[in-house]
Amino acid sequence: MINLAIIGYGNLGKGVENALKFNEDFNLVGIFTRRDVSSINTTNNVYSIDDILNFKDKIDVCILCGSSLKDLTNQTPYLSKYFNTIDSFDMHKLILEHQNNVNKICKKNKTVSIISTGWDPGYLSIQRIYSNSFLPNGNDETFWGKGVSQGHSDALRKVEGVIDAVQYTVPNLELIEEFKKNGVKLNSNLKHIRECYVVCDENYDKNVIESNIKNMAHYFKEYNTIVNFITQEELNLNHKKMPHGGKVLRYGSTSDSNKHLIEFSLKLDSNPEFTASVLVSYARAAYLLSKEKKYGCFNVFDIAPKYLINKSYEEIIKEML
Amino acid sequence: MINLAIIGYGNLGKGVENALKFNEDFNLVGIFTRRDVSSINTTNNVYSIDDILNFKDKIDVCILCGSSLKDLTNQTPYLSKYFNTIDSFDMHKLILEHQNNVNKICKKNKTVSIISTGWDPGYLSIQRIYSNSFLPNGNDETFWGKGVSQGHSDALRKVEGVIDAVQYTVPNLELIEEFKKNGVKLNSNLKHIRECYVVCDENYDKNVIESNIKNMAHYFKEYNTIVNFITQEELNLNHKKMPHGGKVLRYGSTSDSNKHLIEFSLKLDSNPEFTASVLVSYARAAYLLSKEKKYGCFNVFDIAPKYLINKSYEEIIKEML
Repeated sequence: MINLAIIGYGNLGKGVENALKFNEDFNLVGIFTRRDVSSINTTNNVYSIDDILNFKDKIDVCILCGSSLKDLTNQTPYLSKYFNTIDSFDMHKLILEHQNNVNKICKKNKTVSIISTGWDPGYLSIQRIYSNSFLPNGNDETFWGKGVSQGHSDALRKVEGVIDAVQYTVPNLELIEEFKKNGVKLNSNLKHIRECYVVCDENYDKNVIESNIKNMAHYFKEYNTIVNFITQEELNLNHKKMPHGGKVLRYGSTSDSNKHLIEFSLKLDSNPEFTASVLVSYARAAYLLSKEKKYGCFNVFDIAPKYLINKSYEEIIKEML
Repeated sequence: MINLAIIGYGNLGKGVENALKFNEDFNLVGIFTRRDVSSINTTNNVYSIDDILNFKDKIDVCILCGSSLKDLTNQTPYLSKYFNTIDSFDMHKLILEHQNNVNKICKKNKTVSIISTGWDPGYLSIQRIYSNSFLPNGNDETFWGKGVSQGHSDALRKVEGVIDAVQYTVPNLELIEEFKKNGVKLNSNLKHIRECYVVCDENYDKNVIESNIKNMAHYFKEYNTIVNFITQEELNLNHKKMPHGGKVLRYGSTSDSNKHLIEFSLKLDSNPEFTASVLVSYARAAYLLSKEKKYGCFNVFDIAPKYLINKSYEEIIKEML
């Protein structure tokens, strides 16, 4: 059994707790939180994050479920001194720096960390590297959605007169079909439609709100943006789920007459539950690598597939090769 | 530069020669053949396979392009004594035995072999293991085609009165849609349609030929088989290309209300050219592993993605993670 700690109990932490039902080689030591322990509603053990060093010999891997910006930049280096760690660090431009930083700590303290796991970065990254490796002469495109963008939803809520709002990133299906036919790189602003569901204060003019949204630079102005005004009840009823998805397409050729199309697609009812399931799989890999004394900080490109699954080597050859 | 030898110059060997155009870190030392060297039509160096040991210090990796049944069972173990090797061994029940056999030789002689590469086994196997790892509670199905099945085409040609024939394996699109909706495992005989294009001797009764084909056990009887009679000219004109493809679908759940669908699809204009391109990518991995002194015989589950691509570690993080 792999002794696991969940660090942080938001949507992702709850997703990890849930994912353990289907990963029977794990034992949950506990959930570690910054909040008041008594406020956490779960049947599993809950501890204060301040007490985690008391569990140094009882935990094989910690899955860090905080946000990249607020938590992981400091938490992953700190906890990697004492534990094997998994994170889903997704601030793309800072990943290399984060990895180099954590790597020094892991090497020094003989721990394993696997960073930037999840589905993007993560599962979609894996699709990009394999498809580029196997079809080097070509182009690829990644599409996201249909799914909620937290950043764009937050931006909507800051518009004067907006009470609540959700923004879905929706892939442009026509452009997907076009790319599948000719493999020509797409204009990135046209790849997605920004579909907004907005609850507004009735004292404000909807036309003004819509115009303010559509003219917001970086977030909406450069995109095909659709604004739908709805009631709070409708928003609560129909738009509080967390579906998401993504596609990686690669189109290329091996000779003048021979073209090839590689397509990968994820359609997820729950973004945090699926992300959590990927993190648990990489926690297994971190545990196995630490048993092999392969210390350091890695990303998904470093991890051979065999480390991810709860099956013997003979079973994977027989059932999956 | 990675010094490469191509062993065997059939469709796959020609595919590897072609793939090197897009893999600029390789240098082709030569093509090694059992045939009369002067009969091979290429601008590259051609040598007799009997002379290969003279090239022991000039070759970094050999890509073995023969057939599993006739060549690889003996050739991979033999050449792995002297060289790093790549093969596309696809006799599924014998893979573990083949790998164990070659592994002993590699360990003893400090070489690296990566077996059973290509797209199935290979690229589709990778999709199966990742999707099973990340979504452990679910089912998956693999579909093949539309593409020519060499074994079934050979079987058609053995029917009395048949002069020439091609059999396409065609995935059953209705069942694919059904699986995408509910994830219920399918009856494997219904997953594919067997579409036959047959040129027959005019002295034979077409009804008898069709009946003989449709009643051939193991090959056609258990399947929905469609027989089309055409002329040799039509067969030569429209059915001598080598397209193929495949799909891996996995459908599962992380909780009662949250289902997830993972889809991967390959659509290939040329089966041998794409297969060859995958083999070249694994040849790079074998070379890099041998530089790291990680000797032994591996399959695609053992190989971390970073070894497959002609890009630096910083580049893959920046461009693909």
